[in-house]
Amino acid sequence: MEGVFPEPLRQAIKALAFLPGLGEKSATRLALYLVRRPERAEELAAALRALSRIKLCRECGNFTEAELCGLCASPDRDRSVICVVEDPAALSAIESAGVFHGRYHVLHGVLSPRDGLGPEELRIPELLERVRKDNVQEVLIGLSPTAAGEATAAYIVELLNDLPVRVTRLACGLALGMEVRYADHLTLKRALLSREVLK
Amino acid sequence: MEGVFPEPLRQAIKALAFLPGLGEKSATRLALYLVRRPERAEELAAALRALSRIKLCRECGNFTEAELCGLCASPDRDRSVICVVEDPAALSAIESAGVFHGRYHVLHGVLSPRDGLGPEELRIPELLERVRKDNVQEVLIGLSPTAAGEATAAYIVELLNDLPVRVTRLACGLALGMEVRYADHLTLKRALLSREVLK
Repeated sequence: MEGVFPEPLRQAIKALAFLPGLGEKSATRLALYLVRRPERAEELAAALRALSRIKLCRECGNFTEAELCGLCASPDRDRSVICVVEDPAALSAIESAGVFHGRYHVLHGVLSPRDGLGPEELRIPELLERVRKDNVQEVLIGLSPTAAGEATAAYIVELLNDLPVRVTRLACGLALGMEVRYADHLTLKRALLSREVLK
Repeated sequence: MEGVFPEPLRQAIKALAFLPGLGEKSATRLALYLVRRPERAEELAAALRALSRIKLCRECGNFTEAELCGLCASPDRDRSVICVVEDPAALSAIESAGVFHGRYHVLHGVLSPRDGLGPEELRIPELLERVRKDNVQEVLIGLSPTAAGEATAAYIVELLNDLPVRVTRLACGLALGMEVRYADHLTLKRALLSREVLK
């Protein structure tokens, strides 16, 4: 590309190409779009700068601008249930299902000794502290049914064993709309073992 | 998403979702990535702001920071050949083929009366002017073989008819590596009619 595009355009392509899932081609396409629309580029630049205002909710660890996130500050949320999630994206996904009305606890990761992610980094002591002091009745494990998610869930469940709290987890099985013939055998195994009784 | 993510994060998602090819999901993924990496967000914001420094080369219309783009300013480029391209992305693609050593003329679009894109908007008068004053020997039409590209090419060829200049265009046919059985019939028709004589 040397010589073809001016320096600011090359820099923008480079900065965009660092984003996950974007390669040089997509980055070039986006940069060429933005160079023609300075007002969009400016708007995006301002929005990116404002991201530095975001911190973690001191209660649940969700992203927030204030001390408490909107969910923890809301009087409408059931304080007796805490849903443990891996990150704010998982929180958002569960929230958009529209059936959970409790509060969350965001780990910002799953246990991974290799990456230096132990219980402290995942704010697991803070979870136990919340369960104790807030008179929590139920901890709903909302972690993904992956190896790392299961290991993290097992670790948390063991710690909660000593506390007078109900512990539940998201159901696993076939995704809605999924055809049985295309389901992988682990999912099918889980769906069979956790089969629901209809009658 | 109301209440789940703080305002700066929602604004960043919104600004990212305006980019072509990005939906709300990808925008959310990118914003969540950037909120964890303030230095990347800052770098990208600065790069986007710097895009405002880009203008059009007064000779060929390519993006540039200076009066002339790197290609027009270079003494190594053959001034007797001009390749007409739709936009800087097409210029970059042709340039990366590494076999064209002349200069370019960037239309920034193709003829489209509906979008208000006539000959003046596409800098076609400037092309004729360059051909006349620079003693250009060949105009290579580097437009896409699409309906709009063909129409624009035909228009330009007609204008060039009166000038003592050779006019060529990019060859059309099967893309390299493409299997004949999967080629569409228009491409095949073109490949048959423009067949090369080997012996």
